[in-house]
Amino acid sequence: MLNVAILGGSGYTGSELLRLLLFHPNVKVTAVTSERSSGSLISDIFPGFRNTDIKFEPLDLKTLAKKADLFFLCLPHKTSQETVAFLHNAGKKVIDLSADYRIRSAKIYEKWYNTPHSYPSLLKKAVYGLPELYRETIRKSPIVANPGCYPMSAILGLAPILRESFVDIDSIIIDSKSGTSGAGRSPSQPFMFCEVNESVKAYAVASHRHTPEIEQELSQVSGKRIKIIFTPHLIPMDRGMLSTIYVRLKKKVNLTGVQKLYRDFYRNEPFVRVMKNGAYPATKNVKGSNFCDLSIFLDKRTAKGQMLIIVSAIDNLIKGASGTAVQNMNIMYGFEETTGLTASPPSP
Amino acid sequence: MLNVAILGGSGYTGSELLRLLLFHPNVKVTAVTSERSSGSLISDIFPGFRNTDIKFEPLDLKTLAKKADLFFLCLPHKTSQETVAFLHNAGKKVIDLSADYRIRSAKIYEKWYNTPHSYPSLLKKAVYGLPELYRETIRKSPIVANPGCYPMSAILGLAPILRESFVDIDSIIIDSKSGTSGAGRSPSQPFMFCEVNESVKAYAVASHRHTPEIEQELSQVSGKRIKIIFTPHLIPMDRGMLSTIYVRLKKKVNLTGVQKLYRDFYRNEPFVRVMKNGAYPATKNVKGSNFCDLSIFLDKRTAKGQMLIIVSAIDNLIKGASGTAVQNMNIMYGFEETTGLTASPPSP
Amino acid sequence: MLNVAILGGSGYTGSELLRLLLFHPNVKVTAVTSERSSGSLISDIFPGFRNTDIKFEPLDLKTLAKKADLFFLCLPHKTSQETVAFLHNAGKKVIDLSADYRIRSAKIYEKWYNTPHSYPSLLKKAVYGLPELYRETIRKSPIVANPGCYPMSAILGLAPILRESFVDIDSIIIDSKSGTSGAGRSPSQPFMFCEVNESVKAYAVASHRHTPEIEQELSQVSGKRIKIIFTPHLIPMDRGMLSTIYVRLKKKVNLTGVQKLYRDFYRNEPFVRVMKNGAYPATKNVKGSNFCDLSIFLDKRTAKGQMLIIVSAIDNLIKGASGTAVQNMNIMYGFEETTGLTASPPSP
Amino acid sequence: MLNVAILGGSGYTGSELLRLLLFHPNVKVTAVTSERSSGSLISDIFPGFRNTDIKFEPLDLKTLAKKADLFFLCLPHKTSQETVAFLHNAGKKVIDLSADYRIRSAKIYEKWYNTPHSYPSLLKKAVYGLPELYRETIRKSPIVANPGCYPMSAILGLAPILRESFVDIDSIIIDSKSGTSGAGRSPSQPFMFCEVNESVKAYAVASHRHTPEIEQELSQVSGKRIKIIFTPHLIPMDRGMLSTIYVRLKKKVNLTGVQKLYRDFYRNEPFVRVMKNGAYPATKNVKGSNFCDLSIFLDKRTAKGQMLIIVSAIDNLIKGASGTAVQNMNIMYGFEETTGLTASPPSP
Repeated sequence: MLNVAILGGSGYTGSELLRLLLFHPNVKVTAVTSERSSGSLISDIFPGFRNTDIKFEPLDLKTLAKKADLFFLCLPHKTSQETVAFLHNAGKKVIDLSADYRIRSAKIYEKWYNTPHSYPSLLKKAVYGLPELYRETIRKSPIVANPGCYPMSAILGLAPILRESFVDIDSIIIDSKSGTSGAGRSPSQPFMFCEVNESVKAYAVASHRHTPEIEQELSQVSGKRIKIIFTPHLIPMDRGMLSTIYVRLKKKVNLTGVQKLYRDFYRNEPFVRVMKNGAYPATKNVKGSNFCDLSIFLDKRTAKGQMLIIVSAIDNLIKGASGTAVQNMNIMYGFEETTGLTASPPSP
Repeated sequence: MLNVAILGGSGYTGSELLRLLLFHPNVKVTAVTSERSSGSLISDIFPGFRNTDIKFEPLDLKTLAKKADLFFLCLPHKTSQETVAFLHNAGKKVIDLSADYRIRSAKIYEKWYNTPHSYPSLLKKAVYGLPELYRETIRKSPIVANPGCYPMSAILGLAPILRESFVDIDSIIIDSKSGTSGAGRSPSQPFMFCEVNESVKAYAVASHRHTPEIEQELSQVSGKRIKIIFTPHLIPMDRGMLSTIYVRLKKKVNLTGVQKLYRDFYRNEPFVRVMKNGAYPATKNVKGSNFCDLSIFLDKRTAKGQMLIIVSAIDNLIKGASGTAVQNMNIMYGFEETTGLTASPPSP
Repeated sequence: MLNVAILGGSGYTGSELLRLLLFHPNVKVTAVTSERSSGSLISDIFPGFRNTDIKFEPLDLKTLAKKADLFFLCLPHKTSQETVAFLHNAGKKVIDLSADYRIRSAKIYEKWYNTPHSYPSLLKKAVYGLPELYRETIRKSPIVANPGCYPMSAILGLAPILRESFVDIDSIIIDSKSGTSGAGRSPSQPFMFCEVNESVKAYAVASHRHTPEIEQELSQVSGKRIKIIFTPHLIPMDRGMLSTIYVRLKKKVNLTGVQKLYRDFYRNEPFVRVMKNGAYPATKNVKGSNFCDLSIFLDKRTAKGQMLIIVSAIDNLIKGASGTAVQNMNIMYGFEETTGLTASPPSP
Repeated sequence: MLNVAILGGSGYTGSELLRLLLFHPNVKVTAVTSERSSGSLISDIFPGFRNTDIKFEPLDLKTLAKKADLFFLCLPHKTSQETVAFLHNAGKKVIDLSADYRIRSAKIYEKWYNTPHSYPSLLKKAVYGLPELYRETIRKSPIVANPGCYPMSAILGLAPILRESFVDIDSIIIDSKSGTSGAGRSPSQPFMFCEVNESVKAYAVASHRHTPEIEQELSQVSGKRIKIIFTPHLIPMDRGMLSTIYVRLKKKVNLTGVQKLYRDFYRNEPFVRVMKNGAYPATKNVKGSNFCDLSIFLDKRTAKGQMLIIVSAIDNLIKGASGTAVQNMNIMYGFEETTGLTASPPSP
């Protein structure tokens, strides 16, 4: 039985992680922290959790280090930097769900997050925790930087074709639509029910912090420096993320052939489902699951090159956060990779 | 491994049942029927189900009888009558999610369902499948009539006090609020998104078919003939059912004492959670789970006797239908009663 | 042209009032206050309002008193007390949308609002601003206490029968379902999108502050002291309020006769619509309008006396607040009572 | 008083049109047709409309031609073709909300709508009813082809810059998000509440019928043949449409300068609001109004040319359909252009 702790357990990511871990047959959750709710039963904050009598405790790292071997960090960025360092130095393994160890360049990190990175040497030990790309490295890594939700939906949608010569890698546009849980649980006027409900809007146009993360990974996969256009949108629903990805092509392609590229790329992946030709991913079909649904379309009517349109759907809290964290843990500890993650999406 | 079949698998109840059964470690789903979608992969109708390659098949009872030992029936009422009879005669066990075997009196059934009951002798062999009340009978019964969703939320809310002398059993009012999945998957103008969304309404006032079912069971528990006032409402959400139950008291009571009655009554129940004094059940806290959350309030300001106000919350598709069906199966076959049903509600 | 000011204009009630008043042909809005947003253009806070260049100003009563003749107060209770007093002493007319002048007894007010009423003599000058009951008094009153939303839906549903001998006035139960805008615009964790969406819950059971207001008015109409049971519920929608009202009868009645009582009572009312026998009010059919839809049902199956079930639907922000405030203004100033309020509900 | 008729009044577009026309001071609605609901009071189908006693009547053109001078057609495409012809020959004016007279080329129409156009000569008499572009022609035209909702949101977002040399007109991508009312009122499984709610999906990728309409108008404005990429998405809300439009630039531009181009272009337009730099349009801020909100962003980080990102928000049923139809009528008959359309969006 692996002893695990969740640091920062009173947000939606932390609670979803706890929900998944409580069902995991190889794991025991030995501590969950929350500054706000320290001392409270988890079930007092999240009334759904009456199957556990765990209490939130404060973020006292010395005490915590004795309680677990693997730590999931759902802390704000910057706070994560030093917490990871402390735990790493104490010989612990860490899966960090913040952005602090995702960006390999401390300089780019500082530019987008407005704070320096104080542990550049640790950055080198961290792996970007996207199992479909880095499974083998994750297996041996002491620090796993769990991907952001938008990057997850974008990278899975693009990875299979980034090295193809027919792709104009300078043309990529990612138009994403996210449920509201991505904004977190803290009270905030723009995320009040009556503000979000019955409305859709774009936000952080040309400025969202997930941009350098997406670019880093697309560049890594393609072997070339890639810049993207990325526009997130807020949708009146709890969960779910749909990315519509536009890629201009340099040569004409056969759609069936491109779909085959995707099927081959993900052939052995338990959580990526390339849909039938013409089928449309809907976030409802992945909600509550660790699946990513992909569908590939081709627009041949274009004035310039043909346009490939890739639609990707995930649950932002599961495949986009806590589900992938569990998947990473499974890989790190040699558990069957799908353990604890095989739930089908409920319908409706 | 128990072989089970789902008859009528293309509705929300059937698909939710399938989802639960696919995870059940002691069960193999060997057939799922659908007249509308016969021959299609289940995953073509419910794209979430890409972890199974089962196809819908037609409702051919002779063929089906060879495939399974236990049959879950999610068929329309009346159709269920004869299907249960056929399967029972073939020596099979049945959990019927329709209303056909819930009402013990064929006469009352005919009055409310506008069709005669052709198998009154079978009615006697059926048990009302509410585990919290009839666990021992369910264990030995060949036919289990799975409760309706409104009755489930109402009966669990009232059972602990019906034999108490302080209760005026002629005063019971049940005001229920249900998510829209209860109306089923068939296209229907009143259940189109733009009709249901941003609206709430009452329906079937003083005439809903769950009325005699609730009355039958409350009468059974209390030992007296009970008539109720029952008003269902349609709420703009997928799942969830909240019943607010009003019971006039003949004598003054102590709220703590009444809450203790509830706690004692459900002490060993794995799925009924009596909340702390003053806490409010919300359907979100039970969504996706087999839990029923109960909270008990007392209004002392009344002109007449004090009023007990009981609030009960369930997921209409799980505790109100398919989850209880699985719980009944677990009881019938000696599996641990919570097997396959221990999921916490996701948040949010 | 009547000069009017809105004090407390940055909440949902204030902004809805502004929207209605900007269209009113007999009125000029000369000031709108907001402490939080003082100095900002209204359109910066409510981007919909780009047809006005009014700026929010601070609540400086001396300055404000020079700007308008009629003041709408959308201030928190307690603050309203003294603001009303100041404006009244300055010879101004006031429509107060807070609770401060609704409860005629300063003692009852203090009990429910946990603060003394410092202007009991002014209380006597105030009229409860429910046009369907007090039109003539409103016409001459300097202070109109605009009703609460729950009271509006309950009182309109009960007024026509409270003096009838067949009614057991000690039996009244009001089960109300409200959209989320009633909770206001201030950031608050329980009203975040992901908390409210896909959930329904009861709150303030046996303790909501609208209880004494409803009781006061029902008692006034009936001539007898009435106590009620009142349970509010929170529904995942922006607007709309449905009250399901249960009244036990002392004698058998004819439903058509009772419906006729309602039709007669509201025959000349422009905003109360008694629906056809069997028709169900839905909040969507009144959303965005000043209408109240009523439908009357009779349950004859009861153990005790027959039960009358009255369903009433309003838009909580219009007939339940700002629309009635405009209606009251129309009455006070001799404008046609429906002026500015004749919008049909949009569909959907 | 202008006598007008609505042909096809039982859908959402027709009912919204009726709502607007009932408030229009210069207009009398003399007939509303519905094949399905012929003979019924409008208020029996749309319970909100109890301020009118109009009954639906059948589509009997000879009778109808005597009743009105202007006809609004909310009929299915193809049916509209001949209805327009009949009414035009009878000397009537027509505003057609179907697609039948929008596409100037009968050949392109036939290709996308799978039916020939039988009245190519009438096509030449029709004007594309987008007031911001064709006001003067609309004034004199007997047949106005009211724009589709997606085209409206896209064309208004692009018109000001299509003749600018810095625009790469071959690069345009339009990613649109629409509320569900656009799908109409007819029962259909994919638009049932439980299918749409809590989900987002793309549909008709690279194949939506509004594509040629958008291309025709962008080409007309630019003077060059334009092909676009257009992807519609379905959002879980009743109303509202947001288009996120990507335009690659051939030269570097100054964002303020581009924003000024938009402000100048729409300076005298009563219904187009170019937002402040950095402000985000949200559909909630235009819901229930005839406004189009536009905001212009510039991404300078690109690998290729800079990317202009234009976000446009409308209410799909008002500015995207019935509101523009009323605006067109106002222009045709010399009424003040904003008459009947000045409502602010309600909040929330």
